[in-house]
Amino acid sequence: HLDKHVQDKHFVLQLAMWSLRGVSSVILANSPLSGALIMAAVCWESPWQGLLGSLGVLASTLTAVITGQDSAEVSGGHHGFNGMLVSLLMGVFSSAGDWYWWLLLPACFGSATCVFLYSGLSSLLDRWDLPVSVFPFNTVIILYLLCTGSDHPYFPHHPAKPPRALEPGDTKLIAVEVIRGIPLGVGQIFACGALGPSLLILGAVLLYSPLLAIHALLGSAVGTLAGLSMAVNHGYLYSGLSGFNGALGCMTVGGLCFTFNWKIHLFAIVTAFISAYADIALGNLLGTVGLPASSWAATLTTTLMLLLTGSLAEYRIPTVQVMAP
Amino acid sequence: HLDKHVQDKHFVLQLAMWSLRGVSSVILANSPLSGALIMAAVCWESPWQGLLGSLGVLASTLTAVITGQDSAEVSGGHHGFNGMLVSLLMGVFSSAGDWYWWLLLPACFGSATCVFLYSGLSSLLDRWDLPVSVFPFNTVIILYLLCTGSDHPYFPHHPAKPPRALEPGDTKLIAVEVIRGIPLGVGQIFACGALGPSLLILGAVLLYSPLLAIHALLGSAVGTLAGLSMAVNHGYLYSGLSGFNGALGCMTVGGLCFTFNWKIHLFAIVTAFISAYADIALGNLLGTVGLPASSWAATLTTTLMLLLTGSLAEYRIPTVQVMAP
Amino acid sequence: HLDKHVQDKHFVLQLAMWSLRGVSSVILANSPLSGALIMAAVCWESPWQGLLGSLGVLASTLTAVITGQDSAEVSGGHHGFNGMLVSLLMGVFSSAGDWYWWLLLPACFGSATCVFLYSGLSSLLDRWDLPVSVFPFNTVIILYLLCTGSDHPYFPHHPAKPPRALEPGDTKLIAVEVIRGIPLGVGQIFACGALGPSLLILGAVLLYSPLLAIHALLGSAVGTLAGLSMAVNHGYLYSGLSGFNGALGCMTVGGLCFTFNWKIHLFAIVTAFISAYADIALGNLLGTVGLPASSWAATLTTTLMLLLTGSLAEYRIPTVQVMAP
Repeated sequence: HLDKHVQDKHFVLQLAMWSLRGVSSVILANSPLSGALIMAAVCWESPWQGLLGSLGVLASTLTAVITGQDSAEVSGGHHGFNGMLVSLLMGVFSSAGDWYWWLLLPACFGSATCVFLYSGLSSLLDRWDLPVSVFPFNTVIILYLLCTGSDHPYFPHHPAKPPRALEPGDTKLIAVEVIRGIPLGVGQIFACGALGPSLLILGAVLLYSPLLAIHALLGSAVGTLAGLSMAVNHGYLYSGLSGFNGALGCMTVGGLCFTFNWKIHLFAIVTAFISAYADIALGNLLGTVGLPASSWAATLTTTLMLLLTGSLAEYRIPTVQVMAP
Repeated sequence: HLDKHVQDKHFVLQLAMWSLRGVSSVILANSPLSGALIMAAVCWESPWQGLLGSLGVLASTLTAVITGQDSAEVSGGHHGFNGMLVSLLMGVFSSAGDWYWWLLLPACFGSATCVFLYSGLSSLLDRWDLPVSVFPFNTVIILYLLCTGSDHPYFPHHPAKPPRALEPGDTKLIAVEVIRGIPLGVGQIFACGALGPSLLILGAVLLYSPLLAIHALLGSAVGTLAGLSMAVNHGYLYSGLSGFNGALGCMTVGGLCFTFNWKIHLFAIVTAFISAYADIALGNLLGTVGLPASSWAATLTTTLMLLLTGSLAEYRIPTVQVMAP
Repeated sequence: HLDKHVQDKHFVLQLAMWSLRGVSSVILANSPLSGALIMAAVCWESPWQGLLGSLGVLASTLTAVITGQDSAEVSGGHHGFNGMLVSLLMGVFSSAGDWYWWLLLPACFGSATCVFLYSGLSSLLDRWDLPVSVFPFNTVIILYLLCTGSDHPYFPHHPAKPPRALEPGDTKLIAVEVIRGIPLGVGQIFACGALGPSLLILGAVLLYSPLLAIHALLGSAVGTLAGLSMAVNHGYLYSGLSGFNGALGCMTVGGLCFTFNWKIHLFAIVTAFISAYADIALGNLLGTVGLPASSWAATLTTTLMLLLTGSLAEYRIPTVQVMAP
């Protein structure tokens, strides 16, 4: 399969387009321009993260080409985004510092594994017309962190801290920091913890669809509210970690998989709340063994919401149409 | 949807009927009279628990009406029982004492979430003609307990103790206490730990179907036997916690989902044993992070038994017919 | 059902044949001769393990006959291998020493439970044409170990050690011991830790299919390599525990479920790597609560690989044809 593609003289250009589409798929968009903006934001925060992300998206897209996955899926970027997220998170959790070149090895291998998971899970979930979404990323990153551990001789990493854990000096909440956490929640989708790049990512969402951008901010705010009501530690609120699952849940329901109307808008807010609470619960559970909850909560909640029967199901857009640009 | 129902002048009366049906669904019955008896038993043990239970069943039934769930399901009470169990268990695990009014908030939200889980899971499980049963309750209560934790500032709760953990002074087993645990096992289905209310609940089962009542007691006895063989701590036996998963497993197979004959009777006993042992195993696993196994064991075991092929499967009654009153 | 079979005067002989087929099914073979060789190897290592294994395979095959499972499945040995593995592992983990007769009770009960799990899961997995494989074994052994615990008064067992845990004196790796771990990895499929019996088991695989034997060794070598790259403790490498999940994954893909060609050969190696890394990850996770990862990694990975779409899926052999002798 690779041969056939390589003969095409524009292969490298095509690969870049597929990859950028893959990058934009993380925020449920499907536009190379949004993808380029996001890559710029990631590189802005840290060039090393930019390298890891590019490597991840390339490794997984190439693996998809080599293993002969459906070419419409490959060119739509569906095989790139899981690999990119795996590589980015490996970089974020690594405690060996930036430019630790050995990390490229697990990043490549982990990204390639995502393709197998994506392909296998799509056979499984097709029966219910469900998208695979970021299940492969969540699975691979958990397995990688379990394989290594915080004091690993080759690939050490920071243990994840459960949202429950109180930090010393967590006495008074600073309101402006909490509000700052809301746009950061959108940036945390790409493991990005600085305000500038987060706003650029939000801009990339806005460019693709203003409806998505509104729901992203709304979901992040809902997630922060849920975090406040459960008295999570302050760092969790300030960094935007409490918001990004809510944002993902809210975007998927409100801006992508359902025809928009006011009922669906309310439904998206409910989804954001359930995602955010589920994220705190899973974060506390996985935190007991030093693992992060990444986006398990949003992925599971939106999968559940897509399965819903009743009058809300009438507005659901079939997966095939959602996937189309 | 709510509008249409509210126009009906008997809406409140109807809602009460649906809710009582929902209450009786927990013990696999479908009769408002049994439901009323059970509510009486719960209120007898603790009026606060009665309030929580009523709130839970109302919140989830109303959510089902608002989100436009199938009206036959709503009027059959299928959307009430998970909400009720969630609220009851929140009350039992809460360490803030009775009449802690803030608890009504998570009780309402948790009960409403059950409707989404019920609806989503029913799409998933329909493919195998499996009932959703209490999967939503088990999921929501685990997520709630994970969200809060034992030393939570707003919603503190008692950590669950694994059945393995020995208590100081666990030297000699008192036979009469163990036998008393058997009817308590039936009461524990509604988180009820006193003998009188437990017997009243057993009476509610007997009223609906003597066959169910016999299997409930038999299953609870089998569970106690399993607990003895695994040397669980004495409190687990005395409180009936060791019996209620066995009771639920035995009732589902022996009195509900299969046409009764002596083969099915033996099969129900086997199911009770497997449920009880699985409950001890899951209790030990979840107990390491302070979580209860609630009725995961019985739910998973009966789901497995309903999937069984071979000559026993011939006696299975299709789910649609089981659900009908 | 039992009656009909017992009338047949050759019933005992038939049962022996089914059981030996069942024993050989663990290594994906379907030949009573291979089964007899394996039984000899297990008895060679420890007669007590041989007794437990025989009891397990008999108990589960008889349970399948009694519960009226499909007779083609029973005579093909599909109901024997899970029971055998459960009994063997119960013996290996038991810290009560050999010839502890009470252990026969849980061995019988656990083996019988496997039949229910096999039958229920086959209904579930049939929708995707997936084999049940060793899911029942993995589930039952985990539940058994959870039920008891290391300091249980009746059935004590050794806690499993995660592969991450470093031992005192783990300073220098002995190359010859690592290489010795490769054939031991094949033996560990039957929880066999001695070189002689492991080679005999490898001989049994070779007798059935040389292709399977090559992939078994190759997979075990890949698993050892994966273990080295993740710096697992030395005992894990020396005992062959790091190799057996790789071996199982490699055998299933390379020698059984796909038509062999060089692409599938490469695919089998990739499967072995993924199985081996997943085993280390799951071992670290389950090791935190003292549980072994047994063959979860290989079972889940091969199930995933059988679901794969794309050009590799063209070579897949349907399960019905794989199962036929």
